[in-house]
Amino acid sequence: MLDEKDRKILEILMKDARKPFTEIAKELNTSESSIRKRIKKMEENGIIKGYTVVIEPAKIGYNVIALTGFDTDPQDVLDVAKELCKFEEVKKVFTSTGDHMIMTEIWARDGSELKEILFNKIGKIKGIKKICPAIILERLK
Amino acid sequence: MLDEKDRKILEILMKDARKPFTEIAKELNTSESSIRKRIKKMEENGIIKGYTVVIEPAKIGYNVIALTGFDTDPQDVLDVAKELCKFEEVKKVFTSTGDHMIMTEIWARDGSELKEILFNKIGKIKGIKKICPAIILERLK
Amino acid sequence: MLDEKDRKILEILMKDARKPFTEIAKELNTSESSIRKRIKKMEENGIIKGYTVVIEPAKIGYNVIALTGFDTDPQDVLDVAKELCKFEEVKKVFTSTGDHMIMTEIWARDGSELKEILFNKIGKIKGIKKICPAIILERLK
Amino acid sequence: MLDEKDRKILEILMKDARKPFTEIAKELNTSESSIRKRIKKMEENGIIKGYTVVIEPAKIGYNVIALTGFDTDPQDVLDVAKELCKFEEVKKVFTSTGDHMIMTEIWARDGSELKEILFNKIGKIKGIKKICPAIILERLK
Amino acid sequence: MLDEKDRKILEILMKDARKPFTEIAKELNTSESSIRKRIKKMEENGIIKGYTVVIEPAKIGYNVIALTGFDTDPQDVLDVAKELCKFEEVKKVFTSTGDHMIMTEIWARDGSELKEILFNKIGKIKGIKKICPAIILERLK
Amino acid sequence: MLDEKDRKILEILMKDARKPFTEIAKELNTSESSIRKRIKKMEENGIIKGYTVVIEPAKIGYNVIALTGFDTDPQDVLDVAKELCKFEEVKKVFTSTGDHMIMTEIWARDGSELKEILFNKIGKIKGIKKICPAIILERLK
Amino acid sequence: MLDEKDRKILEILMKDARKPFTEIAKELNTSESSIRKRIKKMEENGIIKGYTVVIEPAKIGYNVIALTGFDTDPQDVLDVAKELCKFEEVKKVFTSTGDHMIMTEIWARDGSELKEILFNKIGKIKGIKKICPAIILERLK
Amino acid sequence: MLDEKDRKILEILMKDARKPFTEIAKELNTSESSIRKRIKKMEENGIIKGYTVVIEPAKIGYNVIALTGFDTDPQDVLDVAKELCKFEEVKKVFTSTGDHMIMTEIWARDGSELKEILFNKIGKIKGIKKICPAIILERLK
Repeated sequence: MLDEKDRKILEILMKDARKPFTEIAKELNTSESSIRKRIKKMEENGIIKGYTVVIEPAKIGYNVIALTGFDTDPQDVLDVAKELCKFEEVKKVFTSTGDHMIMTEIWARDGSELKEILFNKIGKIKGIKKICPAIILERLK
Repeated sequence: MLDEKDRKILEILMKDARKPFTEIAKELNTSESSIRKRIKKMEENGIIKGYTVVIEPAKIGYNVIALTGFDTDPQDVLDVAKELCKFEEVKKVFTSTGDHMIMTEIWARDGSELKEILFNKIGKIKGIKKICPAIILERLK
Repeated sequence: MLDEKDRKILEILMKDARKPFTEIAKELNTSESSIRKRIKKMEENGIIKGYTVVIEPAKIGYNVIALTGFDTDPQDVLDVAKELCKFEEVKKVFTSTGDHMIMTEIWARDGSELKEILFNKIGKIKGIKKICPAIILERLK
Repeated sequence: MLDEKDRKILEILMKDARKPFTEIAKELNTSESSIRKRIKKMEENGIIKGYTVVIEPAKIGYNVIALTGFDTDPQDVLDVAKELCKFEEVKKVFTSTGDHMIMTEIWARDGSELKEILFNKIGKIKGIKKICPAIILERLK
Repeated sequence: MLDEKDRKILEILMKDARKPFTEIAKELNTSESSIRKRIKKMEENGIIKGYTVVIEPAKIGYNVIALTGFDTDPQDVLDVAKELCKFEEVKKVFTSTGDHMIMTEIWARDGSELKEILFNKIGKIKGIKKICPAIILERLK
Repeated sequence: MLDEKDRKILEILMKDARKPFTEIAKELNTSESSIRKRIKKMEENGIIKGYTVVIEPAKIGYNVIALTGFDTDPQDVLDVAKELCKFEEVKKVFTSTGDHMIMTEIWARDGSELKEILFNKIGKIKGIKKICPAIILERLK
Repeated sequence: MLDEKDRKILEILMKDARKPFTEIAKELNTSESSIRKRIKKMEENGIIKGYTVVIEPAKIGYNVIALTGFDTDPQDVLDVAKELCKFEEVKKVFTSTGDHMIMTEIWARDGSELKEILFNKIGKIKGIKKICPAIILERLK
Repeated sequence: MLDEKDRKILEILMKDARKPFTEIAKELNTSESSIRKRIKKMEENGIIKGYTVVIEPAKIGYNVIALTGFDTDPQDVLDVAKELCKFEEVKKVFTSTGDHMIMTEIWARDGSELKEILFNKIGKIKGIKKICPAIILERLK
């Protein structure tokens, strides 16, 4: 699906998604229009889903990041997962084969705010049986 | 630490990290140079750690994404976590307070490649006691 | 219940259930009619329950084979187990003394199909409380 | 990879692997030689791995069938799995993403024989850390 | 509460509850009436709760002895425990601080009978949430 | 193996192992010599393993009864189980298929004595990896 | 928030909360009124929440101290935690990210009283799903 | 051991350990010297182990309080527990019958400091196999 040049473009963008096309073109010894076309194609067929900024949560006041698993009755998994997506504090939502069918990443300013989010906001979603948060101590990669 | 305008810039960049400064400036009714200065400052003090492209793994051949926990003797946690960062297949590495002191996200083309990564590559890191992979079925957010 | 010759016939059939009776007879130094009679008797008293073909699932498009445990209220175990037998995707169903009272083997084409099977089809069976899938990485025997 | 006729042949063989080719041909309105050719091709490219007899273990004296998980150090998983394949009592061996990296099916005549197999035979394999047997109460499918 | 002589009597009775008082008296250099009085007193104040025969279950056809834990809602623990006492197959019933608030010892002739007891008889008790049987492989003491 | 009369004798002895043969004979409408012969035969072929007194542990100062599981490397299970049998505080020893391969019943006067037994006496047995005690709150049967 | 002298005062009070201000003042080479003012300020802004006596529970008849986890539906966590605070036997109540969202410390005279507290008193609180007590064997610090 | 008046004194001291003896005496309608004598006696026979100040950890910069379980080989439990007592960050140390033989309460300024304490300081204690921290979200009592 991807040729060697596409892969190299992706690698460059993974490290710096704001790099101008002209610089990418120079690095890969090709024209800017070729880079532009390839990226556009990868955007169109869903390989590239978007570009985002990587933020250090603690620096903007989010001191408690919690990998949080959710247990529900099986018939509620998909509905609960969709509900979870609606909360701004919930940054990522997966269904998985692990100890919990739903895994999320939740950002809170401190333990007290996490408690509020888990029990008074998210915990009110119909169908949730158990919430299992694990606090991230450090992100290394 | 951040004022209202900074927060709005971050929100915009989270949704599209490639948006030109001129457009961000227009949206926020300010000058491009103000945007540029604010972003530069957030980069310098570590609030913005970088910009990256969001890829759909399955579209480039990675069909098995595994949230994978690692158990080690306590004195080996930090060394093992650092070793894990060196593997290209390991996209994220955290230390956490959950069931496993180390949590990672690992990409593989299929179950057979995951097996190779876990047992023949990563599994050889000195100090790992147990590996607990959970396959992501779907990413919703 | 079985004599030595019966056991040897079973061993031969385990390795190749299509081997003609004449060949089995020759291997065991006996007549074809004796083999035929012994096999018929073992079929009649339920020792031999059938003959089946061993398929490589990945070769016919089933890339995700999941050993899947189910939890239910105790009074629902037998009903749920019987319901599970009705699904074509569920290849094996056991009741057991392990972490889950019901254990199954489920075949899916990929993670997305497994998700559909678990949450939208099987998960709708009345009485299921929890579903715990474990993806097979490789079958060695 | 498979066309509709191949699939139907596999379905028939799954239910009765000893059914003569002439009968299969009649059922599918085709010639015996066509059936023979298709099956041969499926055998050659590994879709059909063999034919086997389905035995009721209790009827031949195996009263205790145990789905048994094994824990090892990660670097020993593949070696231990291969060693386990050598034991006749171990009927199936998988590597998996579940609670145990290795899952097996073990047949024993009674609890006392299972104890001998687990602790005095298999338990001696270098690298095994923990053995977790779950006794099958009934196989429904 | 007990003096040295009482303790010695209990030790003797633990090893052979049918030993005649005259023999116990001789062993302890005392009179039969003294033994008789002491035992009667220990029976009266509840130190001795009874005398029982120790049976080898397998010898009378009970091949499957299961240490079985039960989970219930907290308010149902005592009622369920009392209900369990009514079943003849349930030989012992405890409340405990372990993984399960109720622990029992259940005797069955084989796995199939255990399945019937757990799911069709005991499992019908109102309030039971989960049943966790562990099969005894061998009793050493 | 046992006829109806044997079973009735066992039932009587289970409730009161000290009941005189003459009384048992009267209850079952048979002669004392018949009872004596049947019991002797059941003793000889190992159906009856002994007679014991049932004591209320708390009444003789044992306030903490702990169902205690032990984890070991698989090759050490049988040796550790045998070692455990040697301790007087360890009243019962089983190998089992549950969460722990070895299950025991341990009697202690109080929590402090239990701590001494577990860590300073039994814990010194070579090969034990983990000790999991569950305190019995009440014995109902 | 605290200067060095405040910290030293807290250290002294942690070891002996009844120490007279004059003695604290002498130890820290300052005046009693300075100590008094600093302590008052720490009391007012909530740094010092109170002064308490440390009791040896066993000495006043509490022989069973249980660290007890509670599971509830997520929407009930806060209500149940508040209800638990009302029981005199429950000495501490936390919400936490561990295996149980609510952790408590419960004092009982013996196992039988603990059973009563857990099942007949606390267990009646609406919303509790599971109770997991762990008995403290010894407090070392 | 304690009479009614002793109990009342303890209750008063539990709520305010700094309350002057004269006030306690007035509340209980007795003389100051009687209070003084009773308290001295309770101190001497170990009922009262000390007096301490109750601090709000977050107010003095300790934002992360972790109930932390430790697993060790059984023969190392007591040595490890004693070592843990030496660390100032470890405020409480118990041996218990729960999921972990050692339970502690650890104070850290933030997640990063907790990581340092667990892996670089405490984790170096010889004999620790696993560390399981649970972050306290809120203390209610």
